[in-house]
Amino acid sequence: MLSKQMEKNLQNRSAIREVFEYGIELGKKIGPENVFDFSLGNPATPAPEKFKEAVVDLVQNEDSMLLNGYTDNSGYQDVRQAIAEDLNKRYGTDMDFHNIVMSVGAAGALNTVFKAILDIDDEVIFFAPYFSEYVNYVSNFYAKHVVVRPNTETFQPDLADFEAKISEKTKAVIINSPNNPSGTVYSEETIQAIAEILNRKQKEYNKEIYLISDEPYRELLYDGAKHTFVTNYYDNTFVCYSYSKSLSLPGERIGYVAFSKKMAEAGRMEVALKIATRVLGFVNAPSLIQKAVKACLEESTPLDYYAANREILYNGLLNAGFECVKPQGAFYIFLKSPIADDIAFCEKAKEFNLMLVHGTSFECPGFCRLTYCISKEKIERSIPQFEKLAQAFGLTPKK
Amino acid sequence: MLSKQMEKNLQNRSAIREVFEYGIELGKKIGPENVFDFSLGNPATPAPEKFKEAVVDLVQNEDSMLLNGYTDNSGYQDVRQAIAEDLNKRYGTDMDFHNIVMSVGAAGALNTVFKAILDIDDEVIFFAPYFSEYVNYVSNFYAKHVVVRPNTETFQPDLADFEAKISEKTKAVIINSPNNPSGTVYSEETIQAIAEILNRKQKEYNKEIYLISDEPYRELLYDGAKHTFVTNYYDNTFVCYSYSKSLSLPGERIGYVAFSKKMAEAGRMEVALKIATRVLGFVNAPSLIQKAVKACLEESTPLDYYAANREILYNGLLNAGFECVKPQGAFYIFLKSPIADDIAFCEKAKEFNLMLVHGTSFECPGFCRLTYCISKEKIERSIPQFEKLAQAFGLTPKK
Repeated sequence: MLSKQMEKNLQNRSAIREVFEYGIELGKKIGPENVFDFSLGNPATPAPEKFKEAVVDLVQNEDSMLLNGYTDNSGYQDVRQAIAEDLNKRYGTDMDFHNIVMSVGAAGALNTVFKAILDIDDEVIFFAPYFSEYVNYVSNFYAKHVVVRPNTETFQPDLADFEAKISEKTKAVIINSPNNPSGTVYSEETIQAIAEILNRKQKEYNKEIYLISDEPYRELLYDGAKHTFVTNYYDNTFVCYSYSKSLSLPGERIGYVAFSKKMAEAGRMEVALKIATRVLGFVNAPSLIQKAVKACLEESTPLDYYAANREILYNGLLNAGFECVKPQGAFYIFLKSPIADDIAFCEKAKEFNLMLVHGTSFECPGFCRLTYCISKEKIERSIPQFEKLAQAFGLTPKK
Repeated sequence: MLSKQMEKNLQNRSAIREVFEYGIELGKKIGPENVFDFSLGNPATPAPEKFKEAVVDLVQNEDSMLLNGYTDNSGYQDVRQAIAEDLNKRYGTDMDFHNIVMSVGAAGALNTVFKAILDIDDEVIFFAPYFSEYVNYVSNFYAKHVVVRPNTETFQPDLADFEAKISEKTKAVIINSPNNPSGTVYSEETIQAIAEILNRKQKEYNKEIYLISDEPYRELLYDGAKHTFVTNYYDNTFVCYSYSKSLSLPGERIGYVAFSKKMAEAGRMEVALKIATRVLGFVNAPSLIQKAVKACLEESTPLDYYAANREILYNGLLNAGFECVKPQGAFYIFLKSPIADDIAFCEKAKEFNLMLVHGTSFECPGFCRLTYCISKEKIERSIPQFEKLAQAFGLTPKK
């Protein structure tokens, strides 16, 4: 007697979870050190020392009733103000606490935004490849998703197909740069082009079309890539952010929604996001962690760690004979499957103790995702396994 | 361009929040010490020392990647097992970790359960008076609520009306004992009678009807009142619990769903609740706080504090000439309005700097709710104000 949606969810198991759990079982047989698990996007670095110090200081010195009590549904005002000022400094925005609503991670932020804007049968546009959880978030509100086909040469969005997919039912568009699973970073030109199309379509349909920028990987940029802060380019933008990756705090469920003063009905939207946070059952982002994060706004993300992993893995794959676009951000490589059937390819990889996630689960067949947020030592030891996998498919090594 | 539900939410502002905010504004004029705010159910005692010690110990001694990393969507297995064993000891249940899914407070727990079971247009039964937020939780899934009329003599449920309200569309029933707003504690006989009716109706309609016991006030019991643990009486029960009140941690958003091994399809339900936690955007209950709560399972709730407040307020109201049923649990008194129009009565109370919440907002007109989770000193100073309010309505003092 589960709900109809839940019955579907039980049947469509997460491909990521499935390969992760296979890896665990395999580890019991051959030793976990011999399993090369590239499946989960779980940060591989500890939270900064400053975070620990802040938590200890807060718990020892703050009044428990303020520290552990309900906060405003949108979060502590001082935390929101500090985040707004930090964004202003980093990205030249013009925000204050009214423009920040604290959330239970980026997943909470996305659901909060959807609760505020989505009606049954509204359409939300995704660019393939995309994080498959978006489908569930949109389904929570009985809305529908519409997929823009992938550009598998560059993984930059296919703007012609995007424009063709916008209809009068379109309520929102999700972008995710740096991208999970491709590691692509959208250029400023791309963001400008998306904004231009959306502004035109807003006029054509005489309605708001919201751009939702899901950016938990915003700080994970390589080779001089820059993050384009989307509220500066398109007024009706929600930025959904999480400290999961930047401060290595995925379990603490802390993030926010940010939006511009220039958003249509910005004041009403602030109230709507507060109400959405409350009625969805989040009530407020965890209170102690809100304050701890405020103390860590100047902390830097362990970029060198991921950059080194990226080089080893990317070069190892290329030398083995594989093809992939070099990722500019996040901690994923989207490898081209040497055969059209990416599911069969990932099955074959398991024989070499390599746990990869098939691109089909990101609605981009012919590819597979590897995370490099694992230890450098493990990545180094995995390269000979990838070489054997390449040989099994008759690829020619480059080295 | 907000969603239709959100437009309604913006129009129907929370009566509790409205009177609370009125009190804040009044405080700016006459001094906050002169405002007697009985509106918010925010615990008035700090978290236990043990909680602080546990947080410091965990942050200083545990591996950050385990402590602050993603947990299983249902929570840390050791935390779930410890809670199950604690319930077994307290209530004679037979649970293990499979029967506990950690949640973002009781609000998160309720939404997680609803996600697992509710389809569009399903019906959920509430007993008036009820916490108005339930309406929003059920609406999140486009389901409907059906209200059993209040028994305003005892505030025990009207079982005849309950039975009459069950239909083939009924998917679930919420009970909340100790009750917000009435402070009523359901007797074992009441729980047995509800279980008997539901078992009969399950057979009649050949389907599961779930009983959802929302029990954040479970430990707040006075005068020897006992909590009846509902899974022992009805197999298809979800217990939704929060540490907000028992450990004074409302801002930390930590609680759980518990259910019996005897629930229909218990194994599938565990998976469904995990998936619901994930897809709603909670992902997992805050990880550090999960571990800290595990260390506090033996901590006792500051019952004496609330019991003393209850005596002062109850006796003060009675002596002033008001009528109310003496509450056996939680930290609320549900006062009978001396006039039929409880909204007008609460407006009048504001003239005496008394912030009360009208019963209409709990679908029980003719009453109003007072919280006594405020300082003893403030309650003592409020009594003369209540006496003046009683005089304004021509009530005869009892002392």
